[in-house]
Amino acid sequence: MIKTPVNGMRDILPKEMELRNYVLKLIRDTYRSFGFTEMETPAVESIENLTGKQGGENEKLIFKIMKRGEKLRIEDAKTENNLADSGLRYDLTVPLSRYFANHEAELPKPFKALQIGPVWRADRPQKGRFRQFYQCDIDILGESTNLAEIELILATTTVLSLLGFKKVDIRINDRRLLKAMAAYSGVSEDLYDEVFIALDKLDKIGEEGVAKELLSLGIPEESVGKYLDLFRVTSGKTGTEALSALQETLGDKADPEIVRNLSEIFDVVNASKTNEFDLTFDPTLVRGMGYYTGPIFEIGVPEFGSSVGGGGRYDEMVGRFIGKNTPACGFSIGFERILVILSENGFTIPGEQTKTAILLEKGLSAEKRIEALKEAAELRKAGKNVLVVQMAKNKKFQKEQLQEAGYGEFREVYERALQ
Amino acid sequence: MIKTPVNGMRDILPKEMELRNYVLKLIRDTYRSFGFTEMETPAVESIENLTGKQGGENEKLIFKIMKRGEKLRIEDAKTENNLADSGLRYDLTVPLSRYFANHEAELPKPFKALQIGPVWRADRPQKGRFRQFYQCDIDILGESTNLAEIELILATTTVLSLLGFKKVDIRINDRRLLKAMAAYSGVSEDLYDEVFIALDKLDKIGEEGVAKELLSLGIPEESVGKYLDLFRVTSGKTGTEALSALQETLGDKADPEIVRNLSEIFDVVNASKTNEFDLTFDPTLVRGMGYYTGPIFEIGVPEFGSSVGGGGRYDEMVGRFIGKNTPACGFSIGFERILVILSENGFTIPGEQTKTAILLEKGLSAEKRIEALKEAAELRKAGKNVLVVQMAKNKKFQKEQLQEAGYGEFREVYERALQ
Repeated sequence: MIKTPVNGMRDILPKEMELRNYVLKLIRDTYRSFGFTEMETPAVESIENLTGKQGGENEKLIFKIMKRGEKLRIEDAKTENNLADSGLRYDLTVPLSRYFANHEAELPKPFKALQIGPVWRADRPQKGRFRQFYQCDIDILGESTNLAEIELILATTTVLSLLGFKKVDIRINDRRLLKAMAAYSGVSEDLYDEVFIALDKLDKIGEEGVAKELLSLGIPEESVGKYLDLFRVTSGKTGTEALSALQETLGDKADPEIVRNLSEIFDVVNASKTNEFDLTFDPTLVRGMGYYTGPIFEIGVPEFGSSVGGGGRYDEMVGRFIGKNTPACGFSIGFERILVILSENGFTIPGEQTKTAILLEKGLSAEKRIEALKEAAELRKAGKNVLVVQMAKNKKFQKEQLQEAGYGEFREVYERALQ
Repeated sequence: MIKTPVNGMRDILPKEMELRNYVLKLIRDTYRSFGFTEMETPAVESIENLTGKQGGENEKLIFKIMKRGEKLRIEDAKTENNLADSGLRYDLTVPLSRYFANHEAELPKPFKALQIGPVWRADRPQKGRFRQFYQCDIDILGESTNLAEIELILATTTVLSLLGFKKVDIRINDRRLLKAMAAYSGVSEDLYDEVFIALDKLDKIGEEGVAKELLSLGIPEESVGKYLDLFRVTSGKTGTEALSALQETLGDKADPEIVRNLSEIFDVVNASKTNEFDLTFDPTLVRGMGYYTGPIFEIGVPEFGSSVGGGGRYDEMVGRFIGKNTPACGFSIGFERILVILSENGFTIPGEQTKTAILLEKGLSAEKRIEALKEAAELRKAGKNVLVVQMAKNKKFQKEQLQEAGYGEFREVYERALQ
């Protein structure tokens, strides 16, 4: 028997679990107050759904589950897919699309879904990155207007504000504008995907690195120059200003309706937000997943140098299940990343009540134990958390340990009154 | 792409999810008030731990996860275990024992653990039985006295009482008494396990059926008669009376300390309980798992003809990981079973507040939408749950649907004031 968790996964200790539960409850309560309803799908999905080219790089990281019984024919197996019929989900978006396709008739319209649960990716294990981790997604299905984007932004920034994040910035782009920018620069359409993959590395390899990659794709130097110059058009400008400057430059390459839609998101969000955050247009934002079709988002907390979430519109994914497209837009917050930031910054759970420990002398008679248990029940009825525990030989040490675990009130029960 | 869940698993719809969350919160809050702390292990465990002969029949039902990368050598594989390095956990007790072995130095003593999470068993799918289902376990590790059993009973009956179960009965036996009864009847020791498996079917096949099975094991008719007569010794008697009658009959086959320990559990629980339930001694209770070493329990709700949980002491399991036994005792409640009973009996979540829906006329100007979103934010600050949604063409139907989903207050926002 092996006492450590499997490679790349981890156990959660009680102290972290309390913080997780606190954050989960806050997320759940807040999203519920925005009319989202929680739902759940199984951890296991059919292998066909997991390898449908929706998940990009994640599809290489699937934990595959072996067929069972007669269906498993090891001797005839040539490939992995002969042996596996299902796998652990690598995200919550593919299962949500399947769920919506399966239950559309039973769900409200629009359907505002909240999902909180683990996903699995067989990534190379590394510091702070695990093979099982929680995601927390909100999605609005069946809402074609930008009310969806606006509400996702307002709800998520409310969650982050309640968690105490003072500086939050949301960067916005649109998949269709990305294409318009590429078209304007003279990039041929069959290279768009590769161009966006290169652009997505801007943070890591800088503009020079991106230029190099673009050239190596066979894109003419003139196009590369034109493309990179575009990013200057919008820099230093606020959202709507940036958008109209870009529109002016792109001319008829950009559908004015797309720009108007994004501008409206800026205007409505900025005018109705009730907590502080920055909304900026970022023409270099790509987001990895192949399924996005419209506006895309990334949520950053610059004081911690980190992205804590993102999302976008994916109007065509549900259509892969039922042949009929459904407007869909979602946000995912990086639950594990948020927990790490909170822990590292000494976050304490507000309003934690003091707990009571009742220590029983060793070998106490049934009568005395009954008395103590009754007292504990009374205290619990009054709303207290009460631990009944045998007194240790080293009582001082025991109490110190209990104090560290949040116990502030102690009672000691002896067979005979002391003194 | 396949729109249904994988065979034997299921999606959870929003309405059921609300009930699940309500029950989970009640369970969590109540167990916490008894000093249990929540913890979590990964869904995936190493194949070695899952096939260590602790899980009895469940070990045949493991969802096995394929090795990845170079470790997966399909061409050389002869057996399943060449291909799989891990699997989905089939219960929460094996992972808890591994967890305790791994983290003993960081955990309080005794460690009162609460675990809530899914487990997976590749059982033949059937009505009401699924291949992924939640278990909810409490365990006390490091407590050798019956304070563990007593607290598990008091905490679990408190949960059931708060969920509105008026009739609860807990049946108790002890693995060591089961052995003493078999010894007294003249059953040879190598047949104990098979005898207990037969006895465990008493509910289904009756005493005659059990007698038949015992005879077919080669147990002499006289022994079988003596064994079955034992059950008459205790029938109709209360816990402590039944135990002393059994002790008298078994004589020196039963260690008086075992009987005294069980009697004390009866006395202390009955005297200190704060809600109604029956505690009975049941000499026919076996419980399937191989790992029990002392008292065992089964929790029934007779009005629904059903067991809703059980547990027992398993002092030797942690020892399989670290070579040093640790006192351990746990209760598992059948979370899915409880949900089915509550649903079928029309349980409604108490104290649900009315939710507000704000309906926006189609094509509303940005200004009017901003106003509506600000109003929604105000209402949320005042503690309300508020949905902002586009007005449907059939407003009457839309409102009916919203009412069914718990919305009792409506506001409608138009570009121009009506009339």
